Amino acid sequence: MSGSIFGNHFRITTWGESHGPAIGVVIDGCPAGLALSTEDIQPFLDRRKPGQSKYTTKRNESEQIQILSGIFEGKTTGTPISLIVYNQDQRSKDYKNLAATYRPGHADYTFDAKYGFRDYRGGGRSSGRETIGRVAAGAIASKILHTLGITIQAYTKAIGPYSIAPSDYHFDEINRNPLYMPNAQTAKKAEEFLSDCMEQQDSAGGVIECRIEHLPVGIGEPVFSKLDATLAKAIMSIGAVKAVEIGDGFSASSALGSQNNDAFCLDKNGHISKSTNHSGGILGGMSDGDTVILRAAFKPTPSIAKVQNTVTKQGEATTLSITGRHDPVIVPRAVVVVESMAALTVLDLMFSNMHSNLDGILNFYKK
Amino acid sequence: MSGSIFGNHFRITTWGESHGPAIGVVIDGCPAGLALSTEDIQPFLDRRKPGQSKYTTKRNESEQIQILSGIFEGKTTGTPISLIVYNQDQRSKDYKNLAATYRPGHADYTFDAKYGFRDYRGGGRSSGRETIGRVAAGAIASKILHTLGITIQAYTKAIGPYSIAPSDYHFDEINRNPLYMPNAQTAKKAEEFLSDCMEQQDSAGGVIECRIEHLPVGIGEPVFSKLDATLAKAIMSIGAVKAVEIGDGFSASSALGSQNNDAFCLDKNGHISKSTNHSGGILGGMSDGDTVILRAAFKPTPSIAKVQNTVTKQGEATTLSITGRHDPVIVPRAVVVVESMAALTVLDLMFSNMHSNLDGILNFYKK
Amino acid sequence: MSGSIFGNHFRITTWGESHGPAIGVVIDGCPAGLALSTEDIQPFLDRRKPGQSKYTTKRNESEQIQILSGIFEGKTTGTPISLIVYNQDQRSKDYKNLAATYRPGHADYTFDAKYGFRDYRGGGRSSGRETIGRVAAGAIASKILHTLGITIQAYTKAIGPYSIAPSDYHFDEINRNPLYMPNAQTAKKAEEFLSDCMEQQDSAGGVIECRIEHLPVGIGEPVFSKLDATLAKAIMSIGAVKAVEIGDGFSASSALGSQNNDAFCLDKNGHISKSTNHSGGILGGMSDGDTVILRAAFKPTPSIAKVQNTVTKQGEATTLSITGRHDPVIVPRAVVVVESMAALTVLDLMFSNMHSNLDGILNFYKK
Amino acid sequence: MSGSIFGNHFRITTWGESHGPAIGVVIDGCPAGLALSTEDIQPFLDRRKPGQSKYTTKRNESEQIQILSGIFEGKTTGTPISLIVYNQDQRSKDYKNLAATYRPGHADYTFDAKYGFRDYRGGGRSSGRETIGRVAAGAIASKILHTLGITIQAYTKAIGPYSIAPSDYHFDEINRNPLYMPNAQTAKKAEEFLSDCMEQQDSAGGVIECRIEHLPVGIGEPVFSKLDATLAKAIMSIGAVKAVEIGDGFSASSALGSQNNDAFCLDKNGHISKSTNHSGGILGGMSDGDTVILRAAFKPTPSIAKVQNTVTKQGEATTLSITGRHDPVIVPRAVVVVESMAALTVLDLMFSNMHSNLDGILNFYKK
Repeated sequence: MSGSIFGNHFRITTWGESHGPAIGVVIDGCPAGLALSTEDIQPFLDRRKPGQSKYTTKRNESEQIQILSGIFEGKTTGTPISLIVYNQDQRSKDYKNLAATYRPGHADYTFDAKYGFRDYRGGGRSSGRETIGRVAAGAIASKILHTLGITIQAYTKAIGPYSIAPSDYHFDEINRNPLYMPNAQTAKKAEEFLSDCMEQQDSAGGVIECRIEHLPVGIGEPVFSKLDATLAKAIMSIGAVKAVEIGDGFSASSALGSQNNDAFCLDKNGHISKSTNHSGGILGGMSDGDTVILRAAFKPTPSIAKVQNTVTKQGEATTLSITGRHDPVIVPRAVVVVESMAALTVLDLMFSNMHSNLDGILNFYKK
Repeated sequence: MSGSIFGNHFRITTWGESHGPAIGVVIDGCPAGLALSTEDIQPFLDRRKPGQSKYTTKRNESEQIQILSGIFEGKTTGTPISLIVYNQDQRSKDYKNLAATYRPGHADYTFDAKYGFRDYRGGGRSSGRETIGRVAAGAIASKILHTLGITIQAYTKAIGPYSIAPSDYHFDEINRNPLYMPNAQTAKKAEEFLSDCMEQQDSAGGVIECRIEHLPVGIGEPVFSKLDATLAKAIMSIGAVKAVEIGDGFSASSALGSQNNDAFCLDKNGHISKSTNHSGGILGGMSDGDTVILRAAFKPTPSIAKVQNTVTKQGEATTLSITGRHDPVIVPRAVVVVESMAALTVLDLMFSNMHSNLDGILNFYKK
Repeated sequence: MSGSIFGNHFRITTWGESHGPAIGVVIDGCPAGLALSTEDIQPFLDRRKPGQSKYTTKRNESEQIQILSGIFEGKTTGTPISLIVYNQDQRSKDYKNLAATYRPGHADYTFDAKYGFRDYRGGGRSSGRETIGRVAAGAIASKILHTLGITIQAYTKAIGPYSIAPSDYHFDEINRNPLYMPNAQTAKKAEEFLSDCMEQQDSAGGVIECRIEHLPVGIGEPVFSKLDATLAKAIMSIGAVKAVEIGDGFSASSALGSQNNDAFCLDKNGHISKSTNHSGGILGGMSDGDTVILRAAFKPTPSIAKVQNTVTKQGEATTLSITGRHDPVIVPRAVVVVESMAALTVLDLMFSNMHSNLDGILNFYKK
Repeated sequence: MSGSIFGNHFRITTWGESHGPAIGVVIDGCPAGLALSTEDIQPFLDRRKPGQSKYTTKRNESEQIQILSGIFEGKTTGTPISLIVYNQDQRSKDYKNLAATYRPGHADYTFDAKYGFRDYRGGGRSSGRETIGRVAAGAIASKILHTLGITIQAYTKAIGPYSIAPSDYHFDEINRNPLYMPNAQTAKKAEEFLSDCMEQQDSAGGVIECRIEHLPVGIGEPVFSKLDATLAKAIMSIGAVKAVEIGDGFSASSALGSQNNDAFCLDKNGHISKSTNHSGGILGGMSDGDTVILRAAFKPTPSIAKVQNTVTKQGEATTLSITGRHDPVIVPRAVVVVESMAALTVLDLMFSNMHSNLDGILNFYKK
């Protein structure tokens, strides 16, 4: 397989190229009985749509989702759900000059090396449009998690050098600025920074943080399919991600054990709890009842108008200036992608967890 | 499955608890014709063995590997290879007092929540001894990669706050100090720091870096099974890892596109190359011909003698001081574990890559 | 997952219901560089299309295949191939009366029991139309096998009690009669038998045989993924199949060892061969160089106009006469489905076989 | 992978060669909380042990099972269970002459072709001893199924030409004769037939039937992972099996629809039932509440003392007489293997079924 399948139980297969006829996803393993329509999915896609602000590409990309199977009388039937978005704004001519030239920071060279050639139009399979399938499936996973009382929220923690400390988070700010940042002042500075980037024909990166709340204790499988390991794969598989942290992440490596350990305590209801959350809600690869916290570092958009040195497919040195409509930063549009991948990961591990214990199995079948 | 299987083609299943009769691994998918004996595997295990220095536990853990299947007349036969290490120093009594008390920073609570109870002796399945199976299988994967001209080397980049900048790396120092650090001076400071930690009944963490050299271009599958994503899962699945970076990692998120992009150029042989390696050898989820560089952040050992607040299984507040033999830092012993997980990941994706191209398949079967 | 994914390397996901908007398949793992257009696929679909003869349903089912991804400039790119057929003749009203009544021999009751309800229109997911995805993917697998010199041919060995002995096979007859039988006389008798069935508002079953020629020796993995075991699953997963045989099949169970063993000999070129083929081309789960032969028994079409006793979803006894357009026998239309499933199985195991031997891997990467 | 892994949720990996140091299996995915000791497993292994009667080889094969992991205080912990049987009677010299000669009906030639060479001692990996791992794991699956009220029983329906009709079954006879046949008279005739075979240095095959009772309705996944398809793979993966039938099997292909359809009716408790069971308990790939019935055809033991024509590895014609201790028929010892593979298949699909329905998931997590 060429790696376009994710998950073991709630299993998705994405397909489609940026400038092909359509892009889509098939979900195999969605349980029957979930009320579902395009209205559950479209709002997720709209969050990753281009043209939302001056900091996102103005391409008029159609993202009207259609459901082709797996729903009957408004509910999922338990059979595969096929979702499709037809591509419309396919100005392939914009890309003809890129057929033989390798864009720095992109997958052009590695695709050609692996497959012999590539669909060079708009990045082909490695276009950001590939995430449409992830987000559409993630919307469904999120709806199921919601029925289980679990919520997932991602936001922009940093754009370039402008980062927000947890003590300055105002979660109700997230949807009030085009960068999805939980602090209005930092968002403003980040916007100015991005305007500078654009003027200088350059681009920026950033950091997205994601919080998963109300997960039952024990989700994740010890050893290779730990919750943190599976989340790391899911998040690192998003185009521009170069690092993933759980809880205190890198800073845990320079702390002392006595600082980093979270003491167990009893909450006001007498339930087992932790007095701090350095662990980021995961112990031994399983959810520990606290908020799961992860961060992903996104590199700056590689498509820049500034002149760059590169080579052609035939191995000749050349220079390149990538004109056209490109996001100066992809982070704001990636927020919903991080949320979607987290939802897909968590739901899949919750299904897996249902076989952990003989009592649970006996109860299920004695219903 | 409970998550003890890793890989799709060179697939390993690890098993065993710290204080059970034995620990082992089965490899399904090792190609036939590889010369193999315990002498290829034992040196890898010896690198993770306790008692190598004052900074590792003095437990006398037996780690003599035995091969139970899959070898005939000194060569692999293509059938499953079963490897076993019998446990010997099983002082279970040391752990009786831990049966009902949850150690902060450990998996005790999450195991009990998921499975109802746990083998509490020495950490049971979540003991560091679980990595014996990973390292034994990793030794075989490494040997195959070696025949393909690919080398993998990990080392300690940082212990607590003592970190080495790439410009100060001296790779020939790595095996000359007990911490596997590529700089003698920093290693010495780190040793002093660890002595302090031990005096204060505390523990430390650190950072391991890993370099994969001479990988062909195009290894890794676009979308979900990217080389970086698969490495991230593999490395994050190691016990105490809280973060993974590829190439510039987190610092890429605050760089400009013009700084972070690696210009393509031609090397002295006229082959396509890159003038810098911010990407860490991976573009679009596939190896780009440059050195693959990853870093993993390890949290401090959670077992400390300092008194900690915690709770019992029955939900009563208590305090705990973990005495006995524990590593003040697990990073040096984890170096070979990182190398092993990287080897397993890379080899698996190299097998997968063999089906990428019709020409390759035709050549294979026309031999 | 709900079981709509087949294969490990050349992996297909089918989706779609009989009366939904469309039906399709996504192939993940098709190698790059294969010349491919709808003209390679449509002829396969046309062989399973209804309305080919008086013995197949006269429903005007549209089966125009479209390619939505994975092809660029006429060749596969190595990325997922999404294939779609839009449904057109959706006379859902024909089925309204079946919503609450369980058709004997059909999956109505089991679907309801498993999922709580079902898309009852035209059989929903368990309709024969589900095989469209299999056949479309099988056409691509067959084309790849063809480039490797491997051919697969299925045909109707028996309809009801009319069966053809191997000594009476005339392979050039297969495409000259509407039943795809390799003997004109038996085909004629079978047609008369089917006419009788139709007059009596009844239906018939039959046997399909499939021959795979020129497979290299050694395809199939010992133990659980044997070639015969994987073929058995693939073929038994086709709707109405109730039995699968390899080589002599059931009659081998009453033979003596001295009769059933195939002596090895040397062919005219001095190559190792077998003097007989009781094994059906498979020894120890791997292809032995001889023609692979398998047979599948199909039960009679369960949809019959004759009055049957049954129950409603609410648990009330009732009677049922299934009117409308139904095949009196599905065997002729299933011939291409058997061929397709065999092609998908063989290709997948040929990919898996590429990692069997260290020499093969070294050669591949030293190219 | 080389195909030694079976199942998706209750996943087993078998390993070991006939004359290697040991043979074993690792189970990943056994739920926690099952009381388990070797006494649950040994009786299953004793049923496949050689030397039980004059019709089975007199080799003194040790089959004392040991549990190496996954059990604590008498119960499964949810972590991998490693089971091992040490080999003892390794008279490798018996097999030296077979190193270069291909035994007809065996896997010698195909192993050499695939892997370049093979462990020729006692059949190596393709020995019947490979089933030890299947049976040991099957014993555990059976115990779990038993707690769920599900029973599985296999028996010998036919030896050579001596077959028992369902109307002549006496299930209490099964364990009273060495052939595990449900009819004393036929068993006696079959024993005489086997004695003749042995005198004439020949061997025999037979048919095993298996019944699965009290399975809930809806087990099995539509399309590719149907219950019948998955059972077919499981059973066909047993060494000498050449055919698998479900319910009426091949005879369904010559029946009329009106004969083969099972009318639905109401049982005395008013529950939905079927008035006949031609379907063998499976409709649309899912259990229909009736007894699941399958049959497997075993070819005659290929190892015979009679002189056979064959070739050497070097491609020279020769003759071969296989002396030593071989079963004249493997069917009686394979009865428990069929039972074990059926148990593993059913349990795995029961786990998979737990995610089918949103209500079931909600109930599970609201406990």
